[in-house]
Amino acid sequence: MLSIEKAREIIMSELEKLVIPQEPEKLYEPVRYTLRNGGKRLRPALVLLACDLFDADYQKALYPALGIEVFHNFTLLHDDLMDNSPIRRNRPTVHVKWDQNTAILSGDVMSIMAYNLICMVDSEVLSQVCRLFNKTALEVCEGQRLDMNYSQKDNVSIPEYLNMIGLKTSVLIAASLGIGALVAGATDKDSAIIYNFGMNLGLAFQLQDDLLDSFGDQVVFGKKIGNDILTNKKTFLLIKAFEKAKGSDLLVLKKYLSGYDFDPREKINEVISIFSKLEIRKATEEQIGKFYDNALSYLNDLSVPPDRKEVLIQFSEQLMKREK
Amino acid sequence: MLSIEKAREIIMSELEKLVIPQEPEKLYEPVRYTLRNGGKRLRPALVLLACDLFDADYQKALYPALGIEVFHNFTLLHDDLMDNSPIRRNRPTVHVKWDQNTAILSGDVMSIMAYNLICMVDSEVLSQVCRLFNKTALEVCEGQRLDMNYSQKDNVSIPEYLNMIGLKTSVLIAASLGIGALVAGATDKDSAIIYNFGMNLGLAFQLQDDLLDSFGDQVVFGKKIGNDILTNKKTFLLIKAFEKAKGSDLLVLKKYLSGYDFDPREKINEVISIFSKLEIRKATEEQIGKFYDNALSYLNDLSVPPDRKEVLIQFSEQLMKREK
Repeated sequence: MLSIEKAREIIMSELEKLVIPQEPEKLYEPVRYTLRNGGKRLRPALVLLACDLFDADYQKALYPALGIEVFHNFTLLHDDLMDNSPIRRNRPTVHVKWDQNTAILSGDVMSIMAYNLICMVDSEVLSQVCRLFNKTALEVCEGQRLDMNYSQKDNVSIPEYLNMIGLKTSVLIAASLGIGALVAGATDKDSAIIYNFGMNLGLAFQLQDDLLDSFGDQVVFGKKIGNDILTNKKTFLLIKAFEKAKGSDLLVLKKYLSGYDFDPREKINEVISIFSKLEIRKATEEQIGKFYDNALSYLNDLSVPPDRKEVLIQFSEQLMKREK
Repeated sequence: MLSIEKAREIIMSELEKLVIPQEPEKLYEPVRYTLRNGGKRLRPALVLLACDLFDADYQKALYPALGIEVFHNFTLLHDDLMDNSPIRRNRPTVHVKWDQNTAILSGDVMSIMAYNLICMVDSEVLSQVCRLFNKTALEVCEGQRLDMNYSQKDNVSIPEYLNMIGLKTSVLIAASLGIGALVAGATDKDSAIIYNFGMNLGLAFQLQDDLLDSFGDQVVFGKKIGNDILTNKKTFLLIKAFEKAKGSDLLVLKKYLSGYDFDPREKINEVISIFSKLEIRKATEEQIGKFYDNALSYLNDLSVPPDRKEVLIQFSEQLMKREK
């Protein structure tokens, strides 16, 4: 059976081999730059693992796996432009290193390259794979739109937030697993189960990301602590804190949410101290636990021998323990 | 047999019926706005006509036809943003009516909607249709990149220019015909022939567009005369004029190409008068004639009865006579 490490190695080696044209240089060089970002390649690894889970040759899932990774990186490229983020993985983003038009057009070409790879899947499953991928790609755009809307909206509820991160993050993780299953020729029931496992795991993963922004170890987390707080990002933690806060706590939260020109250290410390007082960490961990347990309980229903499921359990554990 | 008018009517009616979600409104409303632009729907009409040409039911080509029209409009949306064009078909462009991020994301979702429609073609031809469409979509991006590069480049040659407009404009016209043929189950030879007919017709069409900018009738052309001249666009006419101009003519051209702050009327008149003096109209018409004749000569080799080809000849004539 395929191990997680082996799956990631295969993807990294195949990404290296991916043929990206030389010309026009200003179209394809930003694509090369974006794809060689040292990412963890979790999504394409999941495509291979899901295919292997159903005892099919993972080679059949290689192209769609690469397609999903290229698509994911296309969304990061355009999202960074729309959010005006200057840095991704310690390197300048494409619109900073080149310019805005280059980011738009090289992103566009990446989305087409993603489809090109997806469409190289065996023709017997092409139609099903395209259907799931298309649905997912539309949902990812919807999630990004809601995220942009919510940054301008005062009252975002927990259900609205969960719906948004479900679309923006979880559906692509779920579809990675679903596409791996489709390629393997899994039954509709098993494909749906593994998709739902991915949805719940994706939600747990995104909430954990929210949590680590306030309570993670910066070295292991790999991002600056408190960045969501500084940029007034409406995360699960902040929405929950607004639900619970009263009196002076509410006033302090409102004050900090009203602008960007506060002392950064002070803003981060004060908001985190309100989070602690209101037991937001605990509330978030409980919600993460629910999604995580949901995810694992889906695995019980899969019609594959228990020992074959081990790798997905291991994957889930690794994914959720990344702050340690 | 399907007439040109009937094909366009079918496309317009199907575009009206196209289901575009309501929410998120700021994602899909710009898509609706972009697709309801009163366009001529030439490309999707060609998909249907090519399918009908080989005696197949044009209904089978409906989804890919719509997909190609949505893709074409996606490229216009992003191109207008990248070129910072405020107006398209007498209406504000999406980045002006909404904002830049909306133009990026609603464009992205349109490209996915295009694929969604393309993938709804019969599964027997899905793989072939996707292959041609993917190749074409990549080429359109390459053409746009070259167009942006050339706007910053001093010496663009005629072959470079023809290659660029081939990629940016002609390949999608060619692919519309090619995809119609694939859906109809035409032979590889016939599909290649009709693709080449489209490439040459597309080149003739774009050069005619260049010509009409200087020598067209504004009312019939539907665009302001001299816009390419004002924006220093390196069209076939300007490149040819630079090849031929000497002495004071060359100096005048160089002067006007050096900036944007000249009296518009004067700049347009003076550049057109140099074009006239250097017989640029004639040179352009000759080049158009070559591509047009090439296009029609491909039709001779098609293995369909001559009377079935009439509609494509008629289409070509209508397309090229639009200034009258």
